[in-house]
Amino acid sequence: MAASKEKVILAYSGGLDTSCCIKWLQEEKNLDVVAVVGDVGQEHDGLAPIKEKALRSGAVDCVVVDMRDTFAKEYLTKALAANALYENKYPLVSALSRPLISKHLVDAAHKYGASCIAHGCTGKGNDQVRFEASIAMLDPSLEILAPVREWDFNTRPEEMAWAQAHGVEVPTTKASPYSIDDNLWGRAIECGVLEDPWCEPPADIYTMTQASEEAPDQPQYVEITFGRGVPYMLDGKQMSFLGVIYALNDIAGTHGFGRIDMVENRLVGVKSRECYEAPGALALIEAHKALEDLVLEREVLHFKHGMEQTWAELVYNGQWFSPLKEAIDAFMASTQRCLSGTVRLKFYKGACTVVGRKSSYSLYDEGLATYDEDDSFDHAAAKGFIGLWTLPTKTWAINRRQEGAPAELFDAQNAAGPLKKGRYEN
Amino acid sequence: MAASKEKVILAYSGGLDTSCCIKWLQEEKNLDVVAVVGDVGQEHDGLAPIKEKALRSGAVDCVVVDMRDTFAKEYLTKALAANALYENKYPLVSALSRPLISKHLVDAAHKYGASCIAHGCTGKGNDQVRFEASIAMLDPSLEILAPVREWDFNTRPEEMAWAQAHGVEVPTTKASPYSIDDNLWGRAIECGVLEDPWCEPPADIYTMTQASEEAPDQPQYVEITFGRGVPYMLDGKQMSFLGVIYALNDIAGTHGFGRIDMVENRLVGVKSRECYEAPGALALIEAHKALEDLVLEREVLHFKHGMEQTWAELVYNGQWFSPLKEAIDAFMASTQRCLSGTVRLKFYKGACTVVGRKSSYSLYDEGLATYDEDDSFDHAAAKGFIGLWTLPTKTWAINRRQEGAPAELFDAQNAAGPLKKGRYEN
Amino acid sequence: MAASKEKVILAYSGGLDTSCCIKWLQEEKNLDVVAVVGDVGQEHDGLAPIKEKALRSGAVDCVVVDMRDTFAKEYLTKALAANALYENKYPLVSALSRPLISKHLVDAAHKYGASCIAHGCTGKGNDQVRFEASIAMLDPSLEILAPVREWDFNTRPEEMAWAQAHGVEVPTTKASPYSIDDNLWGRAIECGVLEDPWCEPPADIYTMTQASEEAPDQPQYVEITFGRGVPYMLDGKQMSFLGVIYALNDIAGTHGFGRIDMVENRLVGVKSRECYEAPGALALIEAHKALEDLVLEREVLHFKHGMEQTWAELVYNGQWFSPLKEAIDAFMASTQRCLSGTVRLKFYKGACTVVGRKSSYSLYDEGLATYDEDDSFDHAAAKGFIGLWTLPTKTWAINRRQEGAPAELFDAQNAAGPLKKGRYEN
Amino acid sequence: MAASKEKVILAYSGGLDTSCCIKWLQEEKNLDVVAVVGDVGQEHDGLAPIKEKALRSGAVDCVVVDMRDTFAKEYLTKALAANALYENKYPLVSALSRPLISKHLVDAAHKYGASCIAHGCTGKGNDQVRFEASIAMLDPSLEILAPVREWDFNTRPEEMAWAQAHGVEVPTTKASPYSIDDNLWGRAIECGVLEDPWCEPPADIYTMTQASEEAPDQPQYVEITFGRGVPYMLDGKQMSFLGVIYALNDIAGTHGFGRIDMVENRLVGVKSRECYEAPGALALIEAHKALEDLVLEREVLHFKHGMEQTWAELVYNGQWFSPLKEAIDAFMASTQRCLSGTVRLKFYKGACTVVGRKSSYSLYDEGLATYDEDDSFDHAAAKGFIGLWTLPTKTWAINRRQEGAPAELFDAQNAAGPLKKGRYEN
Repeated sequence: MAASKEKVILAYSGGLDTSCCIKWLQEEKNLDVVAVVGDVGQEHDGLAPIKEKALRSGAVDCVVVDMRDTFAKEYLTKALAANALYENKYPLVSALSRPLISKHLVDAAHKYGASCIAHGCTGKGNDQVRFEASIAMLDPSLEILAPVREWDFNTRPEEMAWAQAHGVEVPTTKASPYSIDDNLWGRAIECGVLEDPWCEPPADIYTMTQASEEAPDQPQYVEITFGRGVPYMLDGKQMSFLGVIYALNDIAGTHGFGRIDMVENRLVGVKSRECYEAPGALALIEAHKALEDLVLEREVLHFKHGMEQTWAELVYNGQWFSPLKEAIDAFMASTQRCLSGTVRLKFYKGACTVVGRKSSYSLYDEGLATYDEDDSFDHAAAKGFIGLWTLPTKTWAINRRQEGAPAELFDAQNAAGPLKKGRYEN
Repeated sequence: MAASKEKVILAYSGGLDTSCCIKWLQEEKNLDVVAVVGDVGQEHDGLAPIKEKALRSGAVDCVVVDMRDTFAKEYLTKALAANALYENKYPLVSALSRPLISKHLVDAAHKYGASCIAHGCTGKGNDQVRFEASIAMLDPSLEILAPVREWDFNTRPEEMAWAQAHGVEVPTTKASPYSIDDNLWGRAIECGVLEDPWCEPPADIYTMTQASEEAPDQPQYVEITFGRGVPYMLDGKQMSFLGVIYALNDIAGTHGFGRIDMVENRLVGVKSRECYEAPGALALIEAHKALEDLVLEREVLHFKHGMEQTWAELVYNGQWFSPLKEAIDAFMASTQRCLSGTVRLKFYKGACTVVGRKSSYSLYDEGLATYDEDDSFDHAAAKGFIGLWTLPTKTWAINRRQEGAPAELFDAQNAAGPLKKGRYEN
Repeated sequence: MAASKEKVILAYSGGLDTSCCIKWLQEEKNLDVVAVVGDVGQEHDGLAPIKEKALRSGAVDCVVVDMRDTFAKEYLTKALAANALYENKYPLVSALSRPLISKHLVDAAHKYGASCIAHGCTGKGNDQVRFEASIAMLDPSLEILAPVREWDFNTRPEEMAWAQAHGVEVPTTKASPYSIDDNLWGRAIECGVLEDPWCEPPADIYTMTQASEEAPDQPQYVEITFGRGVPYMLDGKQMSFLGVIYALNDIAGTHGFGRIDMVENRLVGVKSRECYEAPGALALIEAHKALEDLVLEREVLHFKHGMEQTWAELVYNGQWFSPLKEAIDAFMASTQRCLSGTVRLKFYKGACTVVGRKSSYSLYDEGLATYDEDDSFDHAAAKGFIGLWTLPTKTWAINRRQEGAPAELFDAQNAAGPLKKGRYEN
Repeated sequence: MAASKEKVILAYSGGLDTSCCIKWLQEEKNLDVVAVVGDVGQEHDGLAPIKEKALRSGAVDCVVVDMRDTFAKEYLTKALAANALYENKYPLVSALSRPLISKHLVDAAHKYGASCIAHGCTGKGNDQVRFEASIAMLDPSLEILAPVREWDFNTRPEEMAWAQAHGVEVPTTKASPYSIDDNLWGRAIECGVLEDPWCEPPADIYTMTQASEEAPDQPQYVEITFGRGVPYMLDGKQMSFLGVIYALNDIAGTHGFGRIDMVENRLVGVKSRECYEAPGALALIEAHKALEDLVLEREVLHFKHGMEQTWAELVYNGQWFSPLKEAIDAFMASTQRCLSGTVRLKFYKGACTVVGRKSSYSLYDEGLATYDEDDSFDHAAAKGFIGLWTLPTKTWAINRRQEGAPAELFDAQNAAGPLKKGRYEN
């Protein structure tokens, strides 16, 4: 009786690449493959057919996990707390799902006694780094395999030929020219004509959002209520965060809001042109920011802006489980403790506008802000404030105007020239 | 024969406040008032009537200066280089004109031999700080007067009564409920119903932008060409930067783009609800950012994002002539040296979308980015890259899993708890 | 029978200024004064005499509180976690005690039913801001009085004359030319000849530290053991954090370590020359940093450096109880969870040197670091790492060398010149 | 007649590693080797013998360049402007010489028509990255070879055996257990017993600095005068920057100042224990900082601290020629324009103390700073200043105390807890 083979856990999607991975891991590495399929809210025709395909492709087992609720509660809440937008635009759609899937891969490795995990990413994308970094932090003893980086076929036709030769099912319909990844938080579209950054994205790449031109002629207003930074009510109706996301994807998408077209800097060192749609995510971030503007103390708000950029870069770069990300989450959590209130959004023809915000924690004080007779602001304080506020630069200006200071120093318009040489030499 | 009186230079707008200032400075401070009127692109019915009103109100002289070209070339170019948006939203409309006007006030003080400058700002706004900080840096020996902070009448009716009693012309039409400041770069609207941040801004506050609902049903495409960070061509037609701004204010405004509704943190410590419209400024910043995404090296781009926030805060806070602002400008100028290329914008129903960008300095390399057969990226490099990139966090993870490490450390999900006590005590 | 007067709580030190404050608050403001005296580890000849003096000076009551343990456990632990050094030099001696004293002042106000708190700070120092900001955050309804800013006598002789005329005890010994503030964490010395920043501080200003020239000729080694960022053992002997501080003040001070001579930027806008001695604090910060270098993951360490500067500025500026300081503390606490281990210091003739560090959480891996035969580092990974690490700048360099790129761009040595004009004009 | 072979330029030091590289490049890669030897101020017994050894080892040519003056003027001035200390301790000794040597390697490649450059660095250090990144930015078309990463012998005995077998001269004296790199700016010592971070460095590793215990019993005072940020006078005697460095290495080294013992984070992902000595560099940085404290406006100073850390990280990571480093240099240059004045240092038994500083650009104003009768500070301004300065946090505190705010929010001591769940679920 044959000795049992070593096992490998594979992140499986049901597509050609990861189906080939199953076969390749068996044949080239002599491993038993356990496929893991995660439902993170992506479009699919049911998970059962994917599981069946994994088994038909040769997997010894296939685990299907509905990760949507955990994704919303443990991942997207933190992304929202950080108003996470990589390079101020991309809401980290795929970058957020990778660590969650990685956690399930590691759990499966422990359960099945596998010492090895495999993913189907190429060598030039970000996702390979996110999987491998996440796995290394969760269990650094696990080995990682990346068949797509290793195997010999590099083009789609070559891959299909290999698949056919090795009994892997080949799609019968013509392949989409685009590469897609999607989940609850949005959808990424790459490749094809999009590779020319001068070319306007064709209408057919989008499925979550309508074109502005086809959006309803009437605007729609929505009120989102947050508790401690997390939305829990839509137009006064209480629902789970997951429910809020689904509802807003629908409303915002219908009105054509949420498309992103950008040139982005990948961790692996290349610029790429990326198109995304993230109607719910972008609407929630807009609303969340508007509530923060009302509720957060000024210095917290300003400092948090810089932290948000760092958070987004860390997660984009696969550092979800890193100690720096964890420490920044502690900072973020502290800022969200009073982030409760309601924001009113207007959707119309591709635009989402904040038109109102209110909170019992609002730091907006009409008495201080008003210019009418109810003004409670101490106007006399301004003179003393300005006196000390400007004292350092005024002292600087007095010094710079003194006898003997070089003439060019007086010209505040003048951009800094290069360091002059000569004075200290001879 | 009477000895000549001391002179004061007054920043004059033609409105009720600064007209009262002329009289008040004469009567309360016994000063001769020289009014200075600057054209920074604000809406007006001609500058000659304003000059005449200054003289009628008692000014001994009135200087009118067309500052628009200097404003565009020396101020707005730098704001654009910094993609300047205070709190990520406000393009610093008034904050940018104050230092320029201050410079002309100081020049006038020198020319007229005045030792004193006056402005008409209240004690709770930002503009008082911007005027006083700018003047202190340009000539710290000048004294500054702020009649509106000092005088005894605090409401509009009281002020009108005082004006009538002292022979200052009183507006015969009903006062607008709003307080307005505008220039080339945009328009600010405060007060009235806007003081309730839950209330949607009424349509009539806007004059530079149409409502989205009334915008044309056809989208409009515009191509903006930049040289060293500064726009100099629109749809292939060369024009001055000033010309580009006027043209884009018109185009973007027609399509309903450029409205801002925010709760903002003033330097003097209060939150205020502000509405702005800045169609040209916001469109130019969008286009400029898109070109930077294409042309700037990744680390420059990421680091510059933080510098931009600092630049905007400095200028918002009146530090235009400060040495820190000057040093950051030197940084910015270095980043703009190759910022040449063309960006294509689409305007439609209140939205402005970047739909294409190209540059001979583009760092987007289709060979590196593509997933098709022309791929020139070294996929094998990824393994080594990920190995060393993840080494610090992997080493951390190995350590944290060792025998003896506290159990809670393994829980990467777990937010940081408070510093435990007890261990070091007894 | 007389109605009872309103009460004011006064931060009392026993010196001339605050003794005059008692009388002045009675006479000028018609208030009953309750004095609060805190022991934060300053040099004193017993607290009972200070209490008696307060009562003799007219206070209706005097509360004496030993704050040392709380100061160490709740304030200095956080300062150490943040390696807090304002402008990289000053360990925030007075800045740390002010919020703690403020808390006791507010508590006393609540206990005695006072609606008002007074302090004895001048109008140009930082401490006034620290008291007033702390009190405003702890109980914004309390009014604050600053007699020294208000009263009419400005020089020491005038103050002594007033004291004598109003029955306040006047010191019989000649006043020290220096102004001193001290506590557990160090000692600040200002005024006199120190006001000339070119003048070397005279030897007699220091009391916690010996001159290097008089320090022992033999070095002394000390081992400090930390648990979760807090020292709890000295040379293997367990003691409270308070005990560690006292012991290190003694050891480091004996060896002449811990003097600081700096020109510092006050919040109120002036530069001042300050001398400090903080032997224990500086030794602990050195040791704590050395342990962090060993235990913290690289990105945590680098990012924390910037946070530390912000923390120190906030606390220097009186923001101890602010929400931003609180959020940064949450970040800091997250980084200290594994900060356990031992650091060995050598003290000799004014210098303190880290000569060894070890920890079971050390991320130093001799197998990875060594160049001898036990090397476990994957050298082959370097090529791939460098390839992708340098890809963005290499792509940049390829573009900048292309036909048509302006000549000056090739000169990487060349500092950025000003924004050129001309290209976009005509 | 044999066709001429392809050429490679090799960074040559005269040691065993790079001598083996010459032979290995000939034999394994069939290349003609041109050696480049740079004098950056390292200890050596003459450059002529090194050149002869290169030729004896098989190089077809050897170029010797005295780079010291350029190193001081174009590299070390910028490091001093940035007070460059990686991880707040290491003055970037080797990191600063690598780009300069790289520039000469690229120049030699162009002169000799070589398409390839080689260096003798291992795969786990930082220097490989610095050479390769610098070369890639200066001429991205050049190929780079790293024989030490490629060849088969990994230990010193294996290497010596290979050398003997291939006719490379083998050192006859016992090898030092340490690995050394040195130049004008300091000296780095690695390996041997130093690989245990708990072990105190033995005395014999240092050659530029005496042990404190053996330093003179008399302190020495030195006055350094700077012009535009660059030292040009010592004790009133004018000299070149190069001369200042040599003189201070001597003085500071004699007094035992300038040793560094740290655990450092390498770019390639490992922590390593490093010992350095940099007597002149550290003394110059101390003096330069003290002058900045006197001359730089507060906000410039505070912001520059963060920029300095970024500068040091960039240069440590090999990004000398990168566009971000260039832009930060423009910022730095702007801050140094008035950085002129004199700093007085005291050296004694291993310590260097700033004891005086003066400048005609000093922003220290004794009239503002003094507490005596010449006080010119406006004390009354403080009240207004504090009023507006504390307004945002006071408004926050008022809100947080209102009816209905959760109890725990009042506890300002309380660290932020984790995001509570439950409220938005059901």
